[in-house]
Amino acid sequence: MFAAILENVRKTCPLIHNITNYVTVNDCANIVLACGASPIMADDKEEVEEITTICSGLNINIGTLNSRTIASMLLAGKKANALNHPVILDPVGAGASRLRTETAYQLLEEVKFAVIRGNISEIKTLASGSGTTKGVDADVADKATEENLDEVVAFAKAFAEKTGAVVAITGAIDIVADKEKAYCIRNGHPMMSSITGTGCQLSAMTAAFVTANPDHPLEAAAAAVCAMGLAGEIAHERLTPLDGNSTYRNYIIDAIYHLSPEQLEKGANYEMR
Amino acid sequence: MFAAILENVRKTCPLIHNITNYVTVNDCANIVLACGASPIMADDKEEVEEITTICSGLNINIGTLNSRTIASMLLAGKKANALNHPVILDPVGAGASRLRTETAYQLLEEVKFAVIRGNISEIKTLASGSGTTKGVDADVADKATEENLDEVVAFAKAFAEKTGAVVAITGAIDIVADKEKAYCIRNGHPMMSSITGTGCQLSAMTAAFVTANPDHPLEAAAAAVCAMGLAGEIAHERLTPLDGNSTYRNYIIDAIYHLSPEQLEKGANYEMR
Amino acid sequence: MFAAILENVRKTCPLIHNITNYVTVNDCANIVLACGASPIMADDKEEVEEITTICSGLNINIGTLNSRTIASMLLAGKKANALNHPVILDPVGAGASRLRTETAYQLLEEVKFAVIRGNISEIKTLASGSGTTKGVDADVADKATEENLDEVVAFAKAFAEKTGAVVAITGAIDIVADKEKAYCIRNGHPMMSSITGTGCQLSAMTAAFVTANPDHPLEAAAAAVCAMGLAGEIAHERLTPLDGNSTYRNYIIDAIYHLSPEQLEKGANYEMR
Repeated sequence: MFAAILENVRKTCPLIHNITNYVTVNDCANIVLACGASPIMADDKEEVEEITTICSGLNINIGTLNSRTIASMLLAGKKANALNHPVILDPVGAGASRLRTETAYQLLEEVKFAVIRGNISEIKTLASGSGTTKGVDADVADKATEENLDEVVAFAKAFAEKTGAVVAITGAIDIVADKEKAYCIRNGHPMMSSITGTGCQLSAMTAAFVTANPDHPLEAAAAAVCAMGLAGEIAHERLTPLDGNSTYRNYIIDAIYHLSPEQLEKGANYEMR
Repeated sequence: MFAAILENVRKTCPLIHNITNYVTVNDCANIVLACGASPIMADDKEEVEEITTICSGLNINIGTLNSRTIASMLLAGKKANALNHPVILDPVGAGASRLRTETAYQLLEEVKFAVIRGNISEIKTLASGSGTTKGVDADVADKATEENLDEVVAFAKAFAEKTGAVVAITGAIDIVADKEKAYCIRNGHPMMSSITGTGCQLSAMTAAFVTANPDHPLEAAAAAVCAMGLAGEIAHERLTPLDGNSTYRNYIIDAIYHLSPEQLEKGANYEMR
Repeated sequence: MFAAILENVRKTCPLIHNITNYVTVNDCANIVLACGASPIMADDKEEVEEITTICSGLNINIGTLNSRTIASMLLAGKKANALNHPVILDPVGAGASRLRTETAYQLLEEVKFAVIRGNISEIKTLASGSGTTKGVDADVADKATEENLDEVVAFAKAFAEKTGAVVAITGAIDIVADKEKAYCIRNGHPMMSSITGTGCQLSAMTAAFVTANPDHPLEAAAAAVCAMGLAGEIAHERLTPLDGNSTYRNYIIDAIYHLSPEQLEKGANYEMR
């Protein structure tokens, strides 16, 4: 199925509106292009609703947040909801400051997300705080390991049920879950953590995958996570002894550019739980 | 003549003030350096007039526009006009939102541009809307092809006459025109569209070329467009099977860095209409 | 000693808060990762104090300054001082506009810096203007050469004494001084000036080095300057005839990623004055 999902991205070339941080924005734009979609970056409240309207999907990333862009995120998110466009949330740094945590909560209250993607600490922050009556038990470990995988999967499913979103928790093992099913993904390479913004890039690409496959958000998000990890593997194999994290960054985007549907189907390394 | 134009950039090393978007700004700075000029990025209204004053040319790019930077663009543009510095406009996304369209109109009203560079849809937006008494017929096709080239050329010349600017419409075939003459340029490679910001980079480099050749804005803008396309060709030849859009981006800037005046003179592929 | 300094960065992996410009921010993040530390970028006044609190060091860079971020720099700087975290100042463009010059002065008045790193023109601007009673004689040449090196060293030491900071003046010869001792460093390659942001990257990396070696700010800053220059040398040796400034940029970060403590110890090229 992942082959068809990637084919749909390449066939429909969806236009993705990104409200994102200024640290990794260029890599986000290039990876969206690499996978076959088109990016638009726009974050002013005077234009975000119009920009979202001409797009098919929206990616909201709260890194380098500021008061000007928070309003834009809310406006664009609500507009995308009204238009039935999928909206992706990347809660970068939720838990690191009140501004980020509270903005993430507010976004969860006011916008319906198709996918929420973050590391386990960010997702735990969201789960423990947002809403109080039906709180999810966020008392899971700080890392998904073979030992606690069932526990993290249960947590992801519970948070997916609560939010109605597909929940993607990325780390050494990635979990992509809706309330019933979870993909446990073992693609990727540890060196990816030495590059800034692989998470942001994945969120932007997830927006493209989910937008091109609106009836299969769980599978599309899982396919995006596998694609990113697989690109990390392919790119790592290309590295020569003097290549470091900067060349690796380029090669990962290159690998997405060349990733064939068959390669993704065959290389995706996951189990369902 | 293009050889001399590039030599002038390398000889005078003009300092170029850029007010530009945060998506492609790093690549813009690096390509300005690659061609032999120097970039300064500054967008706060408290400083843009001073920064423009110490520079020799100004590049205004309206991607990721916001209310803070619009005021800065107007201030810097007027200051550059007063100082007789060439000003380049890249109307990124004009037509995609009222904010961008109206900002582009306002800039056209209040600032005199040496060059306006955009894709055909952006330029059509500017032509159809700005000013009403002497409107240019913007009812041209959405793409310059061999079939409609004369029509697009006529449109570019008319808009050049109306604005007093050199008009550069980039696409598969690039047209660079003043009111009398048009360069129709066939350099470049289709894969350039899979990189974010080649247009922004070209506008920044055009500012450098035009600033270093103040008496020949048409030829300087055409030389910049040829240089960018030629760099796209040279860089594409270097690509190995695993290289994708990210490596291609690096190689294009590298190709500008090494582009010799003779190479540009010989490789420029254009006809006059 | 430089070997131990780099080892400490890799061992302690300090978290570095960066308030920096949007031009070179991605490269700054990647070089901080390359040297073994971790970056966080955050510039909103609502969160900078919290972010600084969870970090161990702070890097303030005034490129693409605006009124929103100036307040954040002051808040974060004071908080970092209260927490005894080292704070690095990169006064990008001080002297080029009143906004930058006065912001740099205000930062020097209100925040205590561990290291101030800039080119000679920026440092001269700071030295001549900030405070008036005990002004440093900033009437040094515009470039450190073999001929005027003693004079520039004396100037750096005087400004270090006045500010209590380690002063790093980078150029063809780099000077890193406290009030008593100065490292005169001859690493690096002239082609580094054809890349945007090598100075910004160095400041971010200096923050990592000084934070991981709190008792040796002079040696840590000198080690960072040597590391950057050495990376420039190593990266330059890798360049093939078609590689230009964009590939060079990647290779420099790659070289930092692979730089071993022994390589730094052996390759550092300096004398004390």
